[in-house]
Amino acid sequence: MLKVYGMSSSGNCYKIKLLLEQLACPYRWEEIDIMQGSTRTADFLAMNPNGKVPTLELEAGVFLAESNAILHYLADETGFMPTEKLARAWVLQWMFFEQYSHEPYIAVARFICKYLCADHPRRAELPRLLERGYQALGVMEQHLAGRAFFVDERYSIADIALFAYTHEADVGGFDVTRYPAVRSWLDRVAGQPKFFPLTPT
Amino acid sequence: MLKVYGMSSSGNCYKIKLLLEQLACPYRWEEIDIMQGSTRTADFLAMNPNGKVPTLELEAGVFLAESNAILHYLADETGFMPTEKLARAWVLQWMFFEQYSHEPYIAVARFICKYLCADHPRRAELPRLLERGYQALGVMEQHLAGRAFFVDERYSIADIALFAYTHEADVGGFDVTRYPAVRSWLDRVAGQPKFFPLTPT
Repeated sequence: MLKVYGMSSSGNCYKIKLLLEQLACPYRWEEIDIMQGSTRTADFLAMNPNGKVPTLELEAGVFLAESNAILHYLADETGFMPTEKLARAWVLQWMFFEQYSHEPYIAVARFICKYLCADHPRRAELPRLLERGYQALGVMEQHLAGRAFFVDERYSIADIALFAYTHEADVGGFDVTRYPAVRSWLDRVAGQPKFFPLTPT
Repeated sequence: MLKVYGMSSSGNCYKIKLLLEQLACPYRWEEIDIMQGSTRTADFLAMNPNGKVPTLELEAGVFLAESNAILHYLADETGFMPTEKLARAWVLQWMFFEQYSHEPYIAVARFICKYLCADHPRRAELPRLLERGYQALGVMEQHLAGRAFFVDERYSIADIALFAYTHEADVGGFDVTRYPAVRSWLDRVAGQPKFFPLTPT
């Protein structure tokens, strides 16, 4: 059975849990607490030398890292991945956009606001994170205006990848109400079968 | 014919040029000067709302962005991409590693050292960029010890993606001689047919 090493409060790990639940794919979840250094142990680094969650164990001793590479692997030949070559390329385009232009700002702002004390020096990063994160939201808004989902007018792993931290952007200080197409898309994703949010309500 | 909007001095754009040349795939190259704001014009943003190069035009009005999504699209069903599902997943794993844990440090340090003046305030970023970039090189060194290439013991787009900025890491102040497996791998990539470096010698 698939085994996911993940931290439940992480948006990158949530992506994998959401897809596995929506696929109705059996898996085991091993909770890893990054804050306690559990990704820096020799045992963990032997599974993923980059020391990050999520890490997927496909079978004993066979590992796959990087949340979006895991999504891509799991979604292959399912309804969460388009079949047409160009649509598949656009799915990857948006997943690379997420990891390069979105997550480093929106997820990091969330982390700082949620976990670090009010006078922590890393709060000095917030103005730049907000500026860059708003740029990413602007790109999403422009693309989603007149579209239901990111690719091919149907829900795919591109939506899961971008939803994970966008639906908690407010935690990092972003005002998502400025982006009506993004807001509507968030609602459409939240309306999918077997949906659940990152943070239990 | 494929058209690449790119900047020749960019490692992300070089990835595409190297693969297209090694595939012997005809293409046109339109030089875009980021420094002159050419990616922020209305015309460019209509092609890629994220305002980045490389952007590939597949046919009139059909665009694909994100260097590694473009590599993946172009390499599909060629010898530069493994056929086995897990090997393909590992290729993507390393490409996401490159964009999240490698490029933001090694490419940005190169940019600052190569293009910004000696007393530019962004030079204050260099210690952190070096620390994180060395972490990425350490992960690569561990993986490449005893391996010829990143996936499946053969040259693939995972190698092209990681080679682009690694072979110019010294420009950003990195001492790559500390990483013998990385050094040997750089030589193996440079020995591939039709190879050329990012910066002409």
